[in-house]
Amino acid sequence: MNTFGRIFKIGIFGESHGKSVGVTIDGCPPGIELKEGDFLEDLERRMSGAKGTTPRKEKDLPEIISGVFNDKSTGAPITIIFKNENIRSKDYSQLKNLPRPGHADFVAFKKYNGFNDYRGGGHFSGRLTLALVAAGVVAKKIVAPIKINADLVEAGGTDNINHAIDLALKKGESIGGIVSCKAQNIPVGLGEPFFDSVESVISHLVFSIPAIKGIEFGSGFLSAQMLGSENNDEIIDESGKTKTNNAGGINGGISNGNDIYFRVVVKPTSSISLAQQTVNLQTGEPERLEIKGRHDACIALRVPVVLEAVTAIALADLMLLK
Amino acid sequence: MNTFGRIFKIGIFGESHGKSVGVTIDGCPPGIELKEGDFLEDLERRMSGAKGTTPRKEKDLPEIISGVFNDKSTGAPITIIFKNENIRSKDYSQLKNLPRPGHADFVAFKKYNGFNDYRGGGHFSGRLTLALVAAGVVAKKIVAPIKINADLVEAGGTDNINHAIDLALKKGESIGGIVSCKAQNIPVGLGEPFFDSVESVISHLVFSIPAIKGIEFGSGFLSAQMLGSENNDEIIDESGKTKTNNAGGINGGISNGNDIYFRVVVKPTSSISLAQQTVNLQTGEPERLEIKGRHDACIALRVPVVLEAVTAIALADLMLLK
Amino acid sequence: MNTFGRIFKIGIFGESHGKSVGVTIDGCPPGIELKEGDFLEDLERRMSGAKGTTPRKEKDLPEIISGVFNDKSTGAPITIIFKNENIRSKDYSQLKNLPRPGHADFVAFKKYNGFNDYRGGGHFSGRLTLALVAAGVVAKKIVAPIKINADLVEAGGTDNINHAIDLALKKGESIGGIVSCKAQNIPVGLGEPFFDSVESVISHLVFSIPAIKGIEFGSGFLSAQMLGSENNDEIIDESGKTKTNNAGGINGGISNGNDIYFRVVVKPTSSISLAQQTVNLQTGEPERLEIKGRHDACIALRVPVVLEAVTAIALADLMLLK
Amino acid sequence: MNTFGRIFKIGIFGESHGKSVGVTIDGCPPGIELKEGDFLEDLERRMSGAKGTTPRKEKDLPEIISGVFNDKSTGAPITIIFKNENIRSKDYSQLKNLPRPGHADFVAFKKYNGFNDYRGGGHFSGRLTLALVAAGVVAKKIVAPIKINADLVEAGGTDNINHAIDLALKKGESIGGIVSCKAQNIPVGLGEPFFDSVESVISHLVFSIPAIKGIEFGSGFLSAQMLGSENNDEIIDESGKTKTNNAGGINGGISNGNDIYFRVVVKPTSSISLAQQTVNLQTGEPERLEIKGRHDACIALRVPVVLEAVTAIALADLMLLK
Repeated sequence: MNTFGRIFKIGIFGESHGKSVGVTIDGCPPGIELKEGDFLEDLERRMSGAKGTTPRKEKDLPEIISGVFNDKSTGAPITIIFKNENIRSKDYSQLKNLPRPGHADFVAFKKYNGFNDYRGGGHFSGRLTLALVAAGVVAKKIVAPIKINADLVEAGGTDNINHAIDLALKKGESIGGIVSCKAQNIPVGLGEPFFDSVESVISHLVFSIPAIKGIEFGSGFLSAQMLGSENNDEIIDESGKTKTNNAGGINGGISNGNDIYFRVVVKPTSSISLAQQTVNLQTGEPERLEIKGRHDACIALRVPVVLEAVTAIALADLMLLK
Repeated sequence: MNTFGRIFKIGIFGESHGKSVGVTIDGCPPGIELKEGDFLEDLERRMSGAKGTTPRKEKDLPEIISGVFNDKSTGAPITIIFKNENIRSKDYSQLKNLPRPGHADFVAFKKYNGFNDYRGGGHFSGRLTLALVAAGVVAKKIVAPIKINADLVEAGGTDNINHAIDLALKKGESIGGIVSCKAQNIPVGLGEPFFDSVESVISHLVFSIPAIKGIEFGSGFLSAQMLGSENNDEIIDESGKTKTNNAGGINGGISNGNDIYFRVVVKPTSSISLAQQTVNLQTGEPERLEIKGRHDACIALRVPVVLEAVTAIALADLMLLK
Repeated sequence: MNTFGRIFKIGIFGESHGKSVGVTIDGCPPGIELKEGDFLEDLERRMSGAKGTTPRKEKDLPEIISGVFNDKSTGAPITIIFKNENIRSKDYSQLKNLPRPGHADFVAFKKYNGFNDYRGGGHFSGRLTLALVAAGVVAKKIVAPIKINADLVEAGGTDNINHAIDLALKKGESIGGIVSCKAQNIPVGLGEPFFDSVESVISHLVFSIPAIKGIEFGSGFLSAQMLGSENNDEIIDESGKTKTNNAGGINGGISNGNDIYFRVVVKPTSSISLAQQTVNLQTGEPERLEIKGRHDACIALRVPVVLEAVTAIALADLMLLK
Repeated sequence: MNTFGRIFKIGIFGESHGKSVGVTIDGCPPGIELKEGDFLEDLERRMSGAKGTTPRKEKDLPEIISGVFNDKSTGAPITIIFKNENIRSKDYSQLKNLPRPGHADFVAFKKYNGFNDYRGGGHFSGRLTLALVAAGVVAKKIVAPIKINADLVEAGGTDNINHAIDLALKKGESIGGIVSCKAQNIPVGLGEPFFDSVESVISHLVFSIPAIKGIEFGSGFLSAQMLGSENNDEIIDESGKTKTNNAGGINGGISNGNDIYFRVVVKPTSSISLAQQTVNLQTGEPERLEIKGRHDACIALRVPVVLEAVTAIALADLMLLK
């Protein structure tokens, strides 16, 4: 469903072209300083505008409607909403019956018997990541002094990212990328054996970000080619510090005090200008689809701040559990 | 914690050298045929014995102690236990104060203030995968006609698996591998947007398997190098069948009716014969550790049946939710 | 926390004197007709205005901000908010340091280290029942043809309710009452043995209504004085219909197809005009408190519609679980 | 389902005439002293033997099969099982098609499509309270110094309990009773507003005890006849101590530091010797049923220790949440 967490619980709601998107955060400890201005930096990082991202501009101003009093969290649920503006619904009218390849249009139609809001992807829109980023801002305050940094390290198969984006834009194409994430100042003992391993909880949330198709912790897929003696991280002092960090800071599902490190892959943006084959949901007949409007050439540009957010949310919940 | 699922809920318990390991399955529909013999095939696949796996032999006979009447599930919780036998605890006494690099020994000691059962990894033991396999047998019956198959496709960086294992054994080393998994006959509409995406739920469970360090769905990490027009799966008929399956059968977190496909990486077995540096938990001093006894050279050999099990558990829960 | 439910999940938020109160409903099936006008009848029943209820008037107009498209539920989370208006915060300023006997003021101050919004009870306000009533309107549509009716059957120890209220108003006092609730057209098989018994789930939600201090199902406390032969409900046909309904429609925690019937007790409204002793949270000294402003003399008048709402929420969740 | 709790989670399993009943406790902190002997006192209190309880004798010896090492909890799940012995299944064969009035037989047959284990009530048996009592023993250790005491204060409508039981036995009848429960040394701040109020969590668990049909906190149903000035508990010092305790130690769902006090009603035992009307599930025809064998005349005699157990479980979870 649309909620996650045991102690630090978040619930997201909203649609791309409805009235609002938003999030409720339940379980935030009281006394955390919080005002609307605190969200702006991360929201800006997520926002469109950079080359390769869509020109649709939303002001994306957060409105805190509960749970904060005198600029501090009260312990009651915090609800933050973002009103939708600047909506050009007509762009999407053609999509009612023509599911876009790579998008959730087809599955949403089937799963919800045609009652889904199809405009702009409806509830499946990337716009819902606003809610994740907002919750992440609160979570980052809770997990301090843990510091979380994510970076786009590669796009279109190269670290020459702007060049790759220029090429894609010229061709009416889109590209994917790799985003790495590191969390520092981690205490020993976050996570639970088996079902609430740190990897389980982080990956669960990471795969709630649209377009993510893989995750690897520490040496990840490379470790399939390593020997045990290379891959094992020798322990060098009683704090648990290790000589290497092939484990990405996690053993047996539990944080070992070293940096938590992982990488995710972002698939190429699904919306492209080129014509693609799909099926008409009314007639059942195949049809060519050309998606009008402008689109992100590289949605991966926007992922780092969202990845930081879900990592913070995961760690906040695990810290409060502990 | 040690439970997972919303409708098809499992809870696992036990330690490597305690009395038993086991699982309770809550939410199994009534009337499913189930007897102890049904578990043997998958348990056999998991069991030690193949070259490259540890010579420790357990009979691993399941005992159903509740929830089944006249060889059918009743709708009440099903508990299955495996008594531990053939335990040579003395092998592990040296480990009380010397955490093995790559294992959970260090984090378990810290997290549980030294009260953890350290023998053979205690509750963190790979032996707990018996519980997962047992639950998977039940889940596979529920998800029929969905068919799930996992295979070890690469070990030590090559598909010449036996050769790679021979080399590792000679050197007293261990190697990792890549396991692929495919689920067929999938209905459209499993999974939920965002937090209970099919990828979220599967990855959550997959990372509860010891030694898994990465997962990728469909084209996975390769998609970072693809163009949108290559990566998008064109829809070719009204059932949702697609020309390609770069999405691994999942759009927007929801199954699209094509095969669900993913791959995981298994790190090299942590226990190796070579001496490694660690720290003595009593003295705080660095110490060299040589792990006595025999070990799996390639734990990845045992992973396929466990991966099938957790996939079946994930799909059973999503099907019953739907 | 502030969420409840397994499939039909609700999360409530807001404060008496903050910007809004509201509710998010996750798990509502798609295709349910829903528009803002549908809420008005039940909101009216809850609203102030009847003799014995506080003269504070809110317009209490619901705003659906997500999850509804073309006047039908989409399957995505439904968020409904009520903006707070007509707030006279100064009435409450005296209460910052003087917890009202019978209210949550003292525990809120302690639990949230003084960061709670104390104005009008903050998040503990009876105003949050707006959120319950709104969720109940949706739940009632889902459980149809189940019909739920609650009535105030006694106030101040008598069924001459208006008279009892008049007396209380004259004395500056408040009174409590008994509310009964009946749900008809119940299918056999709702509820689960033990922890999700129908009684467990209903009572869990019922005790989330402020001022409720007891609940009894069927013959309830009277059954302590009955013989087994009197209390057992003989089964008269194969539908499960029983001659009597001492069980209140529930055996072993499961609905038996007869009406579900229970009664709750509502304590006298805590806010009264008479002076009472309390302690000053700043000074630690005892102090007399006279609560200014006007108050409900009999909050029980407003309980029936809230009781119907939580009953509908409980049954909706159990029906969708089944 | 058959699990409860957020942090201190319990899952129960088993049937009256299956191999075992048992419980898994997940979330018990490490380092709690625990050995099988610790359970005997409470198990003895629950056991049959007192006048008015059934002569069926089980040894009811607990076996801890996981989660305890060197007589201390390890932090891993604790599973405790009780093997069933002394089973006279033939006594129950007549019941396969004849649901006993007042029992779960009818609803179990319908809910589980006839696959339920009908012998002795199967999973619905009061024998499952063994699992609750065992979990309660662990919970009591966690909540110390909180002390919980429950007493049967009335049976068959009188406090002359033995006399009432004698009368019932002579008539082949059964009687119910009232059990009170008090928890002392309660910290301020347990419980959450609304859905996890102390009353909600305790009542949820209390109604999982077979035969309980009502609960009231503090003055309970009597408060419907009180005036606000009588019912409000004046606060007499800064610890929150109140002059009276009509609230039963709970305001706004949160513990206020005074004793938590509540009373429950236990209906008369459903199994009686007298003939009763029921319906034959095979033929659909009405039939007279005489239940052979011996039965508890007053199951309420066994309830106090079970009530203490679920109260301890509720408080343990709320304490660990806090």
